[in-house]
Amino acid sequence: MNFQQKLEEYAELVVKVGLNIQKGQPLLIGTTTDTIEFTRLIVKKAYEAGAKRVDVNYTDEVNARAFYDLAPDEAFHEYPKWLAMQRDELIENKGALLWIDADNPDLLEGVSIDRISNFQKASGKALENYRKAVMNDVITWSIVAIPSEKWAAKVFPELKVESQMEALWDLIFKVVRVGEGTAVQKWKEHISNLESRAALLNAKRFKKLHYKAEGTDIQVELPKDHIWLTGASKNAQGVPYIANMPTEEVYTAPLKTGVNGYVKNKKPLVYQGNIVDDFTLTFENGAITKIEALIGKELLQELTQTDKGAKYLGEIALVPHESPISASNVLFFNTLFDENASNHFAIGEAYPTCVEGARGLSHKALEQIGINTSIVHEDFMIGSADMDIMGELEDGTMEPIFHKGTWAF
Amino acid sequence: MNFQQKLEEYAELVVKVGLNIQKGQPLLIGTTTDTIEFTRLIVKKAYEAGAKRVDVNYTDEVNARAFYDLAPDEAFHEYPKWLAMQRDELIENKGALLWIDADNPDLLEGVSIDRISNFQKASGKALENYRKAVMNDVITWSIVAIPSEKWAAKVFPELKVESQMEALWDLIFKVVRVGEGTAVQKWKEHISNLESRAALLNAKRFKKLHYKAEGTDIQVELPKDHIWLTGASKNAQGVPYIANMPTEEVYTAPLKTGVNGYVKNKKPLVYQGNIVDDFTLTFENGAITKIEALIGKELLQELTQTDKGAKYLGEIALVPHESPISASNVLFFNTLFDENASNHFAIGEAYPTCVEGARGLSHKALEQIGINTSIVHEDFMIGSADMDIMGELEDGTMEPIFHKGTWAF
Repeated sequence: MNFQQKLEEYAELVVKVGLNIQKGQPLLIGTTTDTIEFTRLIVKKAYEAGAKRVDVNYTDEVNARAFYDLAPDEAFHEYPKWLAMQRDELIENKGALLWIDADNPDLLEGVSIDRISNFQKASGKALENYRKAVMNDVITWSIVAIPSEKWAAKVFPELKVESQMEALWDLIFKVVRVGEGTAVQKWKEHISNLESRAALLNAKRFKKLHYKAEGTDIQVELPKDHIWLTGASKNAQGVPYIANMPTEEVYTAPLKTGVNGYVKNKKPLVYQGNIVDDFTLTFENGAITKIEALIGKELLQELTQTDKGAKYLGEIALVPHESPISASNVLFFNTLFDENASNHFAIGEAYPTCVEGARGLSHKALEQIGINTSIVHEDFMIGSADMDIMGELEDGTMEPIFHKGTWAF
Repeated sequence: MNFQQKLEEYAELVVKVGLNIQKGQPLLIGTTTDTIEFTRLIVKKAYEAGAKRVDVNYTDEVNARAFYDLAPDEAFHEYPKWLAMQRDELIENKGALLWIDADNPDLLEGVSIDRISNFQKASGKALENYRKAVMNDVITWSIVAIPSEKWAAKVFPELKVESQMEALWDLIFKVVRVGEGTAVQKWKEHISNLESRAALLNAKRFKKLHYKAEGTDIQVELPKDHIWLTGASKNAQGVPYIANMPTEEVYTAPLKTGVNGYVKNKKPLVYQGNIVDDFTLTFENGAITKIEALIGKELLQELTQTDKGAKYLGEIALVPHESPISASNVLFFNTLFDENASNHFAIGEAYPTCVEGARGLSHKALEQIGINTSIVHEDFMIGSADMDIMGELEDGTMEPIFHKGTWAF
């Protein structure tokens, strides 16, 4: 297949499998002005699949940076109402939401932490209804990515400029299983494999996971009624979709107060256009009580202080170290890819779908059953080739889940 | 000045004179993905001038066309609520609105007239509050333009592709008085000249205008308390701005029921991405009673049937045939330019600011004093080198206003 054919296959995959657009459904796309050509393909295929109306919110990263550099301080305490209403209207109309990510990992490097943090809080509050819809699989949502020049340069600094984009395209096509005209079929098999793995974990009813690796020794309790899920979800109408492409994880929610020990990150975390790296978090009864970090410590501290739930975990996910993305041995500086190359945790909000009967519960009710809530949800990568994970059963028996970075069963 | 310097001067002119951005004011920009570089300049200069937040709605014309070609019929009867709310929020926050036009004049050629008309009606209803704010100078609003490839190709089909953009840039710079670093000063003088002309007309208190030219013989009554205005406006806070750049007109509102005769267009009208041309409209007691047209007749008929006010006039504007834009002898296929090269009328909504005491009145109250209201406002060009306009004074005396296409006094 030539490049254009691969693009078409990718766009088709996103519309048919990722979003699974239904007749008459509206679609909202959030992306940057770096993705215009690909976004056009998605828009066309979405209409062909029956979408009623497709809106695209284009963000220009140059203008976004200008906002952080030049706007007055008070601008960071407000979030436009219309942006929240746009998503509420989409939810009301049972629409689908697609993020086409092409972000420059260094976009907000050097920006005042206060501005980032204040705006994060303002947007978090304004988008509460939307976040609830996403976290509970009320609407269809999906995140995919394509290269931009700045991002490709970050991933492949050793290549010549003209080769950087090509290399990142090739790699993305590969990890989303595009390039042989069989992507839809391959995704069916892939999701089926992930779901078998989740079913095995669900049958075990582990009460606690013990993680050990260089720099990491941590125990994570699971809620009694936890559910291991995959990237394959169903919206409130029962229509299946894939929230992340690629996706290699099975994940669940930890018991909010049941995390003890310390964990070291193994890949950088790109948070709000800044890189955070070489950090160790220490947990006591679920709460982060100590943060050590060589890069981005101040931002990481701000993140964990965003609200009450921002110092607790909301997700634990298992990804074997030999996943296709990990095997590529490339650092993407992009969570969508790096989280699917590595076991990871998420700081902040848990998915209520990960606990039997919790879907749609209020924040208060979730907290009462030990499920964390927050306006943030930030994945960070902890997996490595030396990681062992043991599962503790109800009766105290220990069973290996991961051995040397990959599935032990 | 080199091209980049001219761009800077143009952007500065738009932000400082067109919008006259005030400290803490939000700005909303509506434009297409063809203007990214220029829009970045505007955004930067707006923040430097004190804007609190700048949002840009980028429309991609390829996606816009895909909507008209591929969306289901029912999509054209709805308009997103969030788009209306975005403008209402801007009005509430005393913001400014900038349109950066780069439209392809043939964008919707061949699209079903029903779809265009239905969507025009849906958007017109949804944006009623916004339209009232614009028509009454409640908020700052401005329309400017820069070339796009498709538009430049339409204006200069005889040039080679690489020269088309350059030629249109040169011409736009010229007619907006950019290129010698003195644009702000030149605009001050220019507006002052236009205001002197409006003052002369206002002093006359004409009760009727008689237009004569090849294909045209029409009489237009004016409301007793009419006001001739220029492109220089003041928003509800008294801050001056320029609603159109370029602007060469002085304009007022006709008495809704006082238009009789026939008028022939002298430049094509680009309406909803389609060209309408070679048409004659016949008026009786203000209403269009006959439409003849060689190009775009069906669309023109639809336009005049959009609502009750769409078959009446809302604006008459005087522009000498030797205006700088007219002197360029270029047909722009863009109302912003072509209307400023020619005497013109507008079908539809009148500006309440054109009648003493009418600013802010309800539609009902406006109709009672003979001022037209509608969800449309479409300028069409009627001026030519042979046009004579006589003004009839209160006592029946006739005075020449235009002779052979230009000012008679």
